[in-house]
Formats: sequence, C-alpha cells, structure tokens
Amino acid sequence: MNRHVHLSEKDAEILFWKGVKLTPDRPLSQPGQFIAKESVDLQGPEWRLDKVNIFGPWRKQTQVEILAMDASTLGIDAPINVSGNFKHSAGVSIIGPQGTLELTEGVIVAKRHLHITVAEAEAIGLSDGESIKIKAWTTERGLIFDNVVVRVRDTAVLDFHIDVEEANSAWLEKGAWGEII
Amino acid sequence: MNRHVHLSEKDAEILFWKGVKLTPDRPLSQPGQFIAKESVDLQGPEWRLDKVNIFGPWRKQTQVEILAMDASTLGIDAPINVSGNFKHSAGVSIIGPQGTLELTEGVIVAKRHLHITVAEAEAIGLSDGESIKIKAWTTERGLIFDNVVVRVRDTAVLDFHIDVEEANSAWLEKGAWGEII
Repeated sequence: MNRHVHLSEKDAEILFWKGVKLTPDRPLSQPGQFIAKESVDLQGPEWRLDKVNIFGPWRKQTQVEILAMDASTLGIDAPINVSGNFKHSAGVSIIGPQGTLELTEGVIVAKRHLHITVAEAEAIGLSDGESIKIKAWTTERGLIFDNVVVRVRDTAVLDFHIDVEEANSAWLEKGAWGEII
Repeated sequence: MNRHVHLSEKDAEILFWKGVKLTPDRPLSQPGQFIAKESVDLQGPEWRLDKVNIFGPWRKQTQVEILAMDASTLGIDAPINVSGNFKHSAGVSIIGPQGTLELTEGVIVAKRHLHITVAEAEAIGLSDGESIKIKAWTTERGLIFDNVVVRVRDTAVLDFHIDVEEANSAWLEKGAWGEII
C-alpha cells in the first residue's frame, strides 16, 4: 500500500462539490474497494504531498494512511494504528479542487495486517484481532514481520497488507508470497 | 542511513573543482567517517533527487547508496549489494556545482550489516561475512531482520546499519536496540 485517503461523503463534498461520486480507476484486493481517479493534496506544517490517491467507496469517517517517511516529511506525529483506531492520531489539511478540510484526527501509519476469511482462519486456527508473525519469502532482504494483526471477515480475500516502506525493506513486489509462522 | 554518495577524489574534482576538500558537518558511527556539508544531485531517466549527502573521507571508487524507493523514483534498477560490490549495479548522473559525472556503475541499495570489532565478534562467535538475524526491540512494528551481513574490523564501532525504509518498517529511531538471534 502506498499513502492514501479514505473520505466520508460529507467531507468529499467539502473538497469537491455537492453530489460528487468517485470514479473507480483500479480495483483493490478486497472486494468492492478501489483506487479512484480523483486525488487530493495533503498539507502539513512542513511540507505538502501532491496527488495522494483516494480509496473508495466512501467511509463513515475520513481516514488518512501515510508512510512513516511522510509523517516526518509533513511534520506531523502519526501513530501506528489499525484502520479505524484514531487514538493519538494526527491531523492534516486535505486540499481538494474546490475546498480544504482541516482534519483534526484520523491520520495514521497503518498497522500491517492479514485479511482472511472466516473459513480460512478456522482452518489454520487464527482468530480476529490475533497477532501473528509472517516470514517473507525473499532472498535479498529476508524479513520476519512480527505484530501482524489478523482481520477475519466473511467478505475478505486472503491478503497480507504492508506499506511501501515495509515491502521495500523485504525487497518484495506485489504478489510475493510469505509464510505464517 | 539515508541515501548518500561516497566520492573518489578524482570524481569530486570533476563535480567541484581541483583540490576540493570535504567539510565535515556531522560524524558517523564508524571512526573517521562523516557527513560532509557539500552535497550533489542525482539525475536518473525519470527523476532528479536534490541535495544528496556526501559521506567522507574520499573512497577509492565512487559509490552511490540509495533507498529502494529512490531507485523506482529515479527510474534505475539498483541491486541489494554489500558496499564495494558493484555486480549488476546501476548507473546515474551525479551533478555537482561545477560539473556532471556520468556514473556507469556503483549505484546500489546497501545490504543491511552489522559493524563489529574482532574482539566482540570472537566473544560471541561471529565471523566476517557471516549472515545473521537481528530482532529489533520495538513494540509497534516488530521485525526480525534476516540476512544481516557481519563486517568484522579492528577499527569498527558496534553498530547495526539499516536504511531509512528498513528503520521505518520496524518503527525504530537512531540509537534503538536489537538482539542477535
């Protein structure tokens, strides 16, 4: 995952216009989720990041997921949180083509996680919220990822979600394999 | 470690001027090594990175150490290599205040390594060139780094060298601790 923004419909109407719809560009691994053609900029006290992807569909609450490096570039103090957990989360200005939104919370560095279905989780004895280790199958930059949160959903597609910095640290490309240990 | 360049004196004279000396700004962990006040730009087929640090003193051969993310930004194909190994290494244009150097090899993504003295290595049974695992002491983003190369030198100061992306992936700050496993 690279940096991206999830928007509530209400916030999107501030950034774009009333009745705005997201235009799907590419699908994401989880069913129904997509990268939109629309984008926004993020402005922190120290820097601005241009053309940050929006992931659709709308969420109940706006959430910004950035890289650890982005937090330092923007000059904000974002914690490692699971999606939806805004405890100690940072703020940022989101700039759209028609308006600016002063977000006071909801900026996080996403905690690495494994998407898995109920049946798959049962088959290998994992439960929702559990913390596991995943060993990346790579020769150049071997890594064992500890503290991987298991997210069990009926609608899930089995997928291990890490961000660009974590993938680079294991020298992994999209579609690489790993092992639950 | 962030991205940086080691220059030969001959190459530095192309980029700067005849008789140029590096001005130490901050010392590095290994004795005698420093970050210089001078900097250069790197130009690849797709992008330019401005103000890249030079590490002194001079090296016999010019070497550029970048992040995996930089390789993709610049549009070059740099391998994970130990310092000094130019096998399959990439090229880049180095731009100084007075001249440009077309480097045809020597651009790598540095392989993570542990600097250790002869006495320390003997005490814990490690040998030069050996590959070990290091577990980062971190709670947020636990990582076990596999494929860490041991570099035994009499003049070493014990230090585990990883780059910014690897440090971010473990949510580590400079001076954090780990454990050899």
